[in-house]
Amino acid sequence: MTVENVIIIGSGPAGFTAGLYTSRAQLKPLLLTGNEIGGQVALTYEIENYPGFPDGLPGPELVEKLQTQAERFGTRIEYDYVTEVDLQQHPFVVRTQNGQEYRTKSVIVSTGATPRKLQIPGELELTGRGVSYCATCDGFFFRNKEVVVVGGGDSALEEGLFLTRFASKVTIVHRRDELRASKIMRKRALENEKIEFIWDTVLASINAGENGAVASVTLKNVKTEELRDLPAEGVFIFIGHKPNGELFSGQLAMQDGYIVTNRTMHTNIPGVFAAGEIQDNHFRQVATSVGQGTMAAMETERFLAELEDKRYEEIKAEMAGA
Amino acid sequence: MTVENVIIIGSGPAGFTAGLYTSRAQLKPLLLTGNEIGGQVALTYEIENYPGFPDGLPGPELVEKLQTQAERFGTRIEYDYVTEVDLQQHPFVVRTQNGQEYRTKSVIVSTGATPRKLQIPGELELTGRGVSYCATCDGFFFRNKEVVVVGGGDSALEEGLFLTRFASKVTIVHRRDELRASKIMRKRALENEKIEFIWDTVLASINAGENGAVASVTLKNVKTEELRDLPAEGVFIFIGHKPNGELFSGQLAMQDGYIVTNRTMHTNIPGVFAAGEIQDNHFRQVATSVGQGTMAAMETERFLAELEDKRYEEIKAEMAGA
Repeated sequence: MTVENVIIIGSGPAGFTAGLYTSRAQLKPLLLTGNEIGGQVALTYEIENYPGFPDGLPGPELVEKLQTQAERFGTRIEYDYVTEVDLQQHPFVVRTQNGQEYRTKSVIVSTGATPRKLQIPGELELTGRGVSYCATCDGFFFRNKEVVVVGGGDSALEEGLFLTRFASKVTIVHRRDELRASKIMRKRALENEKIEFIWDTVLASINAGENGAVASVTLKNVKTEELRDLPAEGVFIFIGHKPNGELFSGQLAMQDGYIVTNRTMHTNIPGVFAAGEIQDNHFRQVATSVGQGTMAAMETERFLAELEDKRYEEIKAEMAGA
Repeated sequence: MTVENVIIIGSGPAGFTAGLYTSRAQLKPLLLTGNEIGGQVALTYEIENYPGFPDGLPGPELVEKLQTQAERFGTRIEYDYVTEVDLQQHPFVVRTQNGQEYRTKSVIVSTGATPRKLQIPGELELTGRGVSYCATCDGFFFRNKEVVVVGGGDSALEEGLFLTRFASKVTIVHRRDELRASKIMRKRALENEKIEFIWDTVLASINAGENGAVASVTLKNVKTEELRDLPAEGVFIFIGHKPNGELFSGQLAMQDGYIVTNRTMHTNIPGVFAAGEIQDNHFRQVATSVGQGTMAAMETERFLAELEDKRYEEIKAEMAGA
């Protein structure tokens, strides 16, 4: 049976970058895309903050460039979805939706995370046209505009405060009458003149204007069930992220659904590395994911070089002893 | 006196990326370039492994893109060289060659590192035309070619072994008759069929062919002083890097000349962050440096937000207690 050098699971910036680096290192990597090629980037209308593109570029275009570059150096890409992994034996086993069973000496996990959705009318259609899940990414587009923030946790308030640098007004809509956020974040948000709170309220829909972008939201008071419209050009939704890590549950060290890595992208199992948002709950940028994909790939190279001299069990014993 | 929000010291990928992110966050950063705009990238003939450019691009072109993008969002760039910093008082003090004295609430250090040079004829002129200081970056260009590696430490052997994936032959030239490298690396290199060692020998010059690229090296035996030519299309020089960190000596925690950072680019002084090769002796890629520049910038934003609520001394005391 063929044993792969490295299987990369996931096709966001971290995965394609890992493909680029491991293929340039002549490792002939196999990349399994998952269901959505490009991950969150593919759903991003315009990316202005990936270094090297001064005029910005559409997310799908960046994904295409990353894929082309990885393929140029020999990354083999399969449009397949991993359904099961066994990391307890080595070579590792990877099984897929298309019925393939692979053996591989190393694995790079870059399955990403998905922002939790409100699942209301308008949300999906207007993503990238006023609906956003990242203030750092998109705040700049909303200078002197009125925006709505949905959520009541630390990240909602932090991103809401960040948005006050751009927006003329930030309305935070929260379904309860108090905030889950930490005291310090609550204080900062409540004292900020640009921020207004609407309590006990959820979004019933996000509504487009004539230009096809967000023009208003329909609010629903959860106590009175009263509906009303609020004009807004931006809707930022911060109700959490769902890391795509079910596959690894019980096999890798994880925390809150995220894979635990060290600074150089090693998981707790030698030969298994992780990069991108599946192990980063904090920065979540294309630029940080490509950096992490690079590190994971270079560390994979080192691991495979070590494996030429030593049995896997020796490497494992050394790591356990370290 | 004006107090800057953030001063970025250095103009490589980490510095310009920090400029991009802090300017998009409306912090109006000031970037002081240092003597060489773009750092090592500016001296790179062709970059194939920065994700997003499937056809590769010349180093100076990437530098121009990074600079344009940082400026587009309001990064102020000064062509000036920092001669002195005082990080013991806050706001910090930064003094320059042009006689400026700045005060700033935060600093991002991205002064980079410089590969040590042999300082022989042909080295500078042929850099990027066969002379390289990075096997990960440039090895792919030397498929089925003969290359020379200079050095006898772990990194020389590791990069030499990496080059055997591409080159038809790798000749390691070392000025002594034994290797400083670790036992395991020595064993691997000595057993590799593509690697040959030439002992007690240094390079006297690197010589161009008619196409203007490296065609041979002139070797000099240090015991007999005998000179001879060896054909080679690539010369990889691994005799160490010099981090550009003298400015911070005695002020920041450092190790072997590199600034010590935690995983999110904090130094040991609150409000001072570092990114890129000044704090990374290991990966040294454009992709990792932009990731680090992004992290340093986002952590700077958080620090400045915290500074709106608290006195600097409080933040410092909290950090010391943590």
